[in-house]
Amino acid sequence: MKLIAFDADDTLWVNEPNYVDVKQNLCELLSHHVDQETLTQRFYDAQIKNLQVFGYGAKSFILSMIETAIELTSGAITGMEIQQIIDTGRRLIDFPIDVLDGIPEVLEILSKKFDLMVLTKGDLFDQESKIARSGLGHYFKHMEIVSEKNEQSYQRILQRYNVAPADFIMIGNSLKSDILPVVQIGARAIHIPYAITWEHERVSDEQLVGKSFITVESARELLGLF
Amino acid sequence: MKLIAFDADDTLWVNEPNYVDVKQNLCELLSHHVDQETLTQRFYDAQIKNLQVFGYGAKSFILSMIETAIELTSGAITGMEIQQIIDTGRRLIDFPIDVLDGIPEVLEILSKKFDLMVLTKGDLFDQESKIARSGLGHYFKHMEIVSEKNEQSYQRILQRYNVAPADFIMIGNSLKSDILPVVQIGARAIHIPYAITWEHERVSDEQLVGKSFITVESARELLGLF
Repeated sequence: MKLIAFDADDTLWVNEPNYVDVKQNLCELLSHHVDQETLTQRFYDAQIKNLQVFGYGAKSFILSMIETAIELTSGAITGMEIQQIIDTGRRLIDFPIDVLDGIPEVLEILSKKFDLMVLTKGDLFDQESKIARSGLGHYFKHMEIVSEKNEQSYQRILQRYNVAPADFIMIGNSLKSDILPVVQIGARAIHIPYAITWEHERVSDEQLVGKSFITVESARELLGLF
Repeated sequence: MKLIAFDADDTLWVNEPNYVDVKQNLCELLSHHVDQETLTQRFYDAQIKNLQVFGYGAKSFILSMIETAIELTSGAITGMEIQQIIDTGRRLIDFPIDVLDGIPEVLEILSKKFDLMVLTKGDLFDQESKIARSGLGHYFKHMEIVSEKNEQSYQRILQRYNVAPADFIMIGNSLKSDILPVVQIGARAIHIPYAITWEHERVSDEQLVGKSFITVESARELLGLF
């Protein structure tokens, strides 16, 4: 039996634009202290540094915003402004889930023929909450939330479910997380690009050389492939 | 084959005292603004409120400390002091793991006869990092990190591993998370109390009426039970 795994954020539902919005709020709050370009660069640096310590997800994002605001104002930011940052960040925890076009229809059809899995990286609490809010949970037989998507984590999951690489298909929007490590372990991957990609998830063209995977424009095209 | 699951924090290694230490630092930082008792109460309230939004773990704890500090100083806390809170909180991410007495010996023996699992609740990133730092990972065939330990989450795990309740044994320090829900689904539980219990994990004597489980004083006593 084939196992088909779907990434969640920006594959099943809109995610990144919510983060971009919240970051835009931070820009506005700090606009008297710093220009947008400097903020964007410093905030990205803080996020990457904090990935090692706090991992992915909303809480890590909020802590990075606070640290960036303190640094760029040389500590002059007030307690009330920091509370404002936290309150804006809290939106990342409970924004309404906007399911991407065609997804319910595709899941409805595929779930009748295959075992489906949600396979996402990030914060456990965040991701469980988003799956619940999406109303898509019942299409998935399995749910796996990992702290990082790399060859090791994919191999661990295939072992856990006793699935051969040839019987595993990963579908997602991130070349870095959903496609390259999957192709690398000999399984198949289908890329559905999303309009916005977080800088950290981008890969260079060289990394794609010799890698074989399918790209489709939207979820509905998946139906033609199975 | 029996499946024996161990809780992690304050069962395999010392955890709660690190949180108590970090909270003590917050008390000292705010000692000019508020007495210890008020701080303790308000901080606990913030934590419980944030559990619904941010879940368990270090990042949630840090965000609760920041919110409490802003509230109790009416926003007068400075950016630098908030950075100090974050830096103190960061210790919760990388403190050296102090494995509890007898644990490696007990795991060494039991892992030869049974399938062992780490079954812990909390933040995925935090808990994976602690398991790695503990050096105990190789004793465990399975690792499950859940956002909450209740009857539903235990049932989900037993289904996933195809284990009957009669073949499952849970060992841990929290009556609320490790013992009561396990007994409730018809599996067995062994309680190893730890010196400090977070208020949120305490249960009343009434909740224990009619519940059957074993309590041992230390991990080494487990060997006599299997």
